[in-house]
Amino acid sequence: MAAAGWPVCAQSLKGVILDMCGVLYDSGDGDGVAIPGSIEAVQRLKRSDLQLRFCTNETQASRDRFVAKLQRLGFDISVKEVFSPAPAAVSVLKERGLRPHLLVYDGLLPEFEGLDQKNPNCVVIGDAAEKFSYENLNDAFRVLIGLDKPLLFSLGQGRYYKETDGLKLDVGVYMKALEYACDVKAQVIGKPSPTFFQSVLNDMGIQPHEALMIGDDLVNDVGGAQSCGMMGVQVRTGKYRASDERHSSVRADGTEDNLSRAVDLLLHHRGQ
Amino acid sequence: MAAAGWPVCAQSLKGVILDMCGVLYDSGDGDGVAIPGSIEAVQRLKRSDLQLRFCTNETQASRDRFVAKLQRLGFDISVKEVFSPAPAAVSVLKERGLRPHLLVYDGLLPEFEGLDQKNPNCVVIGDAAEKFSYENLNDAFRVLIGLDKPLLFSLGQGRYYKETDGLKLDVGVYMKALEYACDVKAQVIGKPSPTFFQSVLNDMGIQPHEALMIGDDLVNDVGGAQSCGMMGVQVRTGKYRASDERHSSVRADGTEDNLSRAVDLLLHHRGQ
Repeated sequence: MAAAGWPVCAQSLKGVILDMCGVLYDSGDGDGVAIPGSIEAVQRLKRSDLQLRFCTNETQASRDRFVAKLQRLGFDISVKEVFSPAPAAVSVLKERGLRPHLLVYDGLLPEFEGLDQKNPNCVVIGDAAEKFSYENLNDAFRVLIGLDKPLLFSLGQGRYYKETDGLKLDVGVYMKALEYACDVKAQVIGKPSPTFFQSVLNDMGIQPHEALMIGDDLVNDVGGAQSCGMMGVQVRTGKYRASDERHSSVRADGTEDNLSRAVDLLLHHRGQ
Repeated sequence: MAAAGWPVCAQSLKGVILDMCGVLYDSGDGDGVAIPGSIEAVQRLKRSDLQLRFCTNETQASRDRFVAKLQRLGFDISVKEVFSPAPAAVSVLKERGLRPHLLVYDGLLPEFEGLDQKNPNCVVIGDAAEKFSYENLNDAFRVLIGLDKPLLFSLGQGRYYKETDGLKLDVGVYMKALEYACDVKAQVIGKPSPTFFQSVLNDMGIQPHEALMIGDDLVNDVGGAQSCGMMGVQVRTGKYRASDERHSSVRADGTEDNLSRAVDLLLHHRGQ
């Protein structure tokens, strides 16, 4: 349907931003598995005249370890090309002199080393997965409710993601839980925060209308990018669901079967 | 402040509904502890010309076991005087021929015996406390997201409650989590559902304006009762917080230090 339209508009693009989990690979046991054609699609984009960045809400591992995993899966990718919420959160915490209570996956803790975490005056949650126990969520709640003005940061606001063994609840679900418990609104760091997308555009030195976001998450990838003035294309991999194509408020500029197909169309229309 | 007003209006009352946890007792290790003066306050209400019922969102034990606990704490109370969400939920499930996936505390499971729970077509959550693990919440999520039209029932919608060792997250927090994950609105069974309050009024055979609700939860006890046309008085025990007295949308008809004090004022103004 939309397939005929978006690649034509894409001729004036200068840069592409790729979501990672569900677009490049499916997570699961060990490193997970690369989605067929994605490794080559990244190579072709890198050989093209387009700039390329990666933008993830992945918060189960430090950025270094996360990128190392992608490299083991066969992707040509480096740390400086990847934007993720934890480094962005550390900047915000340092700027504002905040001491976080962390409810994050163990693998993410190294990102926060060097920050004072005693006597916390805010809570930061990431995709903590199994660490989202009743006890741990209750501990985070008690820190928040004990503050004069509860301050909650959420590394992303995803509902769920797909691992090789099925759908898993994401951080946004627990963000909503704590928001309700404490009657506060969380500050989201990561997609779909405009500040986060803008930092990627700044790094490429291009304007929003010159950039295309490709993701599997209709609301956070596609809708988030569109809110910033970028084009947004959804792929039918990862957490994609057929009902996304009749979503009440977000309509992708295009929907393609996978990254490989999207890159085919994009480069074909650019004569590459 | 409000203390001067509400007992005067209370002269025309015919019945009183008492919340239980945080009003009669504080939960915690073992049976918890009776709040000083509450055992006697219940006795005095029972000796008065007012009808008395108890209305709880407690869902950690079957109603039989819950009432037995209150009796051990010294309260003069019987099962038929107590309204709780699980029996109400069982009625709804039977009426609609629904097969629940249950995410509830083990102690509540006996209430649901006899219901077909294979191949579930809805999810029922109660105050599952430690059973609200990531794995269990994910299981409930997968049932919901696998249904054509996700159907979620929540036994209450409380934010948190107080046990002897501190504040604990309540079922409403996990209701909001699953609502967000599946983009659905839960059906609440228990306070503050008007259907639930009305069933208590029906049992007493009185009109809303003839009834007073006394609770520690400003939104669910006081606000819920007021929405049904009843008077609502909050006590400064249990989950009461000073900020409740400047809440943006709910204003109690009165706020008293504890149940004993509220009953003093009520009976004094009725000449009893």
